[in-house]
Amino acid sequence: MNVTHKEAFSLLQNTDNILILTHRNPDGDAVGSMFGLFYALKEMGKNVRCIIDTVSDALSFPVTEEAFIEFEPDTVVTVDVADKKLLTEDTLEKYGDRVFLAIDHHEANKPFSEHLLLDYKASAACEVLFDMLTAAGRDISRECATALYLGISTDTGCFRYPNTSAHTLYAASVLVEKGVDNGEINRIVFETKSRAYVQFEALAMSSLRTYFDGKCAVIVLTQDMFRRTGVSEADTHGIAALPRQIEGVLAGIVVKEKKDGTYKISVRTNEPISAAEICEVFGGGGHRLAAGCDMAGRPQQVVNDILKVVGEALENI
Amino acid sequence: MNVTHKEAFSLLQNTDNILILTHRNPDGDAVGSMFGLFYALKEMGKNVRCIIDTVSDALSFPVTEEAFIEFEPDTVVTVDVADKKLLTEDTLEKYGDRVFLAIDHHEANKPFSEHLLLDYKASAACEVLFDMLTAAGRDISRECATALYLGISTDTGCFRYPNTSAHTLYAASVLVEKGVDNGEINRIVFETKSRAYVQFEALAMSSLRTYFDGKCAVIVLTQDMFRRTGVSEADTHGIAALPRQIEGVLAGIVVKEKKDGTYKISVRTNEPISAAEICEVFGGGGHRLAAGCDMAGRPQQVVNDILKVVGEALENI
Repeated sequence: MNVTHKEAFSLLQNTDNILILTHRNPDGDAVGSMFGLFYALKEMGKNVRCIIDTVSDALSFPVTEEAFIEFEPDTVVTVDVADKKLLTEDTLEKYGDRVFLAIDHHEANKPFSEHLLLDYKASAACEVLFDMLTAAGRDISRECATALYLGISTDTGCFRYPNTSAHTLYAASVLVEKGVDNGEINRIVFETKSRAYVQFEALAMSSLRTYFDGKCAVIVLTQDMFRRTGVSEADTHGIAALPRQIEGVLAGIVVKEKKDGTYKISVRTNEPISAAEICEVFGGGGHRLAAGCDMAGRPQQVVNDILKVVGEALENI
Repeated sequence: MNVTHKEAFSLLQNTDNILILTHRNPDGDAVGSMFGLFYALKEMGKNVRCIIDTVSDALSFPVTEEAFIEFEPDTVVTVDVADKKLLTEDTLEKYGDRVFLAIDHHEANKPFSEHLLLDYKASAACEVLFDMLTAAGRDISRECATALYLGISTDTGCFRYPNTSAHTLYAASVLVEKGVDNGEINRIVFETKSRAYVQFEALAMSSLRTYFDGKCAVIVLTQDMFRRTGVSEADTHGIAALPRQIEGVLAGIVVKEKKDGTYKISVRTNEPISAAEICEVFGGGGHRLAAGCDMAGRPQQVVNDILKVVGEALENI
């Protein structure tokens, strides 16, 4: 049952012994919304705990040990979880069928909880939480604000992406007013790369080839590149954005060799090319400007197969 | 004479036939503050014109032809000019001694005008203009807001740098509310690189070496790299930020070979290393975390000389 921001807050106010869950492979918004809610509920005098997968170092500053003191929860809340399948295996099995309140911002949300606070116009689950606390007239502490800032800034690419609304910037403004050290957080989260990643990125860029008068750019990532640099595949999501950044590129493709020798393809496009349509040809899908699919075969054949579909899309402009 | 935001607006209200100038090699804030003020004054019924150096394509969207219709001005206003020496040669000679009002945000501003609206807490001249229009109770049009957004977003690295205050984010929020297409502007300004620049960046990164257990990273840019890629030196300012982005680096150095065979050194540091102190050893200077100097000699000798000074700074931590 969908609830408003105020109703969601009231539901939380009337419960105690609360367990907060988020999705596996936690990103900045998962960490930020989990700990933003943790601090807000603690400040209301609630008994609260969290269960979360390993958090990468750069995103770990809102994490606090006191969130992991175990107790048997009366109330289970999820944040930033669009589908209960995205919970960790353990938490899905133990709590998947007894989520009291889910707080989310994904348009593709598949309801699984007793109550759902869903605002898909919000840039981040942290923006939904900001609105919930604001609607309830709660003051936001510096700790809570710092966590919420993490989620909003990471889900918007530090306010670059088109999901950054006037309201998103307003929320960020209020949070920074509460004492968030936004300059330092941005330095850690957006301006710091590992040496291995820098080497990996250089290798990736050296594989870049352009086609169709520069309208299509392709990067091929091999298992050998991962081995040589020691970068983990989980840390290379950012590469998918690189080919499309080149001036004049309408379709940016990243072909990533997986451990089993098949390929994961990421397609990012600019208007009027649809990434989803290109990927659907190969049984994949996604959004209009960002989509993906899986392919098998020899690497050059995989690239040629994609280029054929991209070429047709470019001809139909 | 220093004036407040309201007084500056009153001064403008009581004048007409206004010429707006900005600094040479215009960046986003120069373009944004010039055209932000242009649109605001036009909407007040003023006769206004602008003189500006060549504007790079990515920053040209606020520029309008009607700003270049010539007339003999009664009032000269500068925006984002910290020192009259930064005006173009032509405008310095013709108007340098008759500037009525200067609107600026640089802490190192050297006053040169009859009236000065200076707010060095503002992230950008565009933020000063936003505050001036707001203080005067003026509504901000979409055209004006788009220009002001350009200046604020570029001077803050799209809200990444520590000069991004709560008020900066608030101003951006109000501007986006006025209809600025911030997602598209950010794509053009921050997410687009020329193919030549991408090649240049890959060459630059392949020259990266680290020293002192990874606490110092050095990139050497040669004239050959500029020739091979066709990138102009003016387009490579961003490279200076790259070495410091690597995890664990306290001193990031870029050594750039100039056309005359000497070297321009850019030093970016993290606390507690002072970039200014390193550069002062070689007769240069700057800010605590960003400074520069000029050096001559064989490239390896130049690098060794700097490394010696960096090594001493690292030992004294």
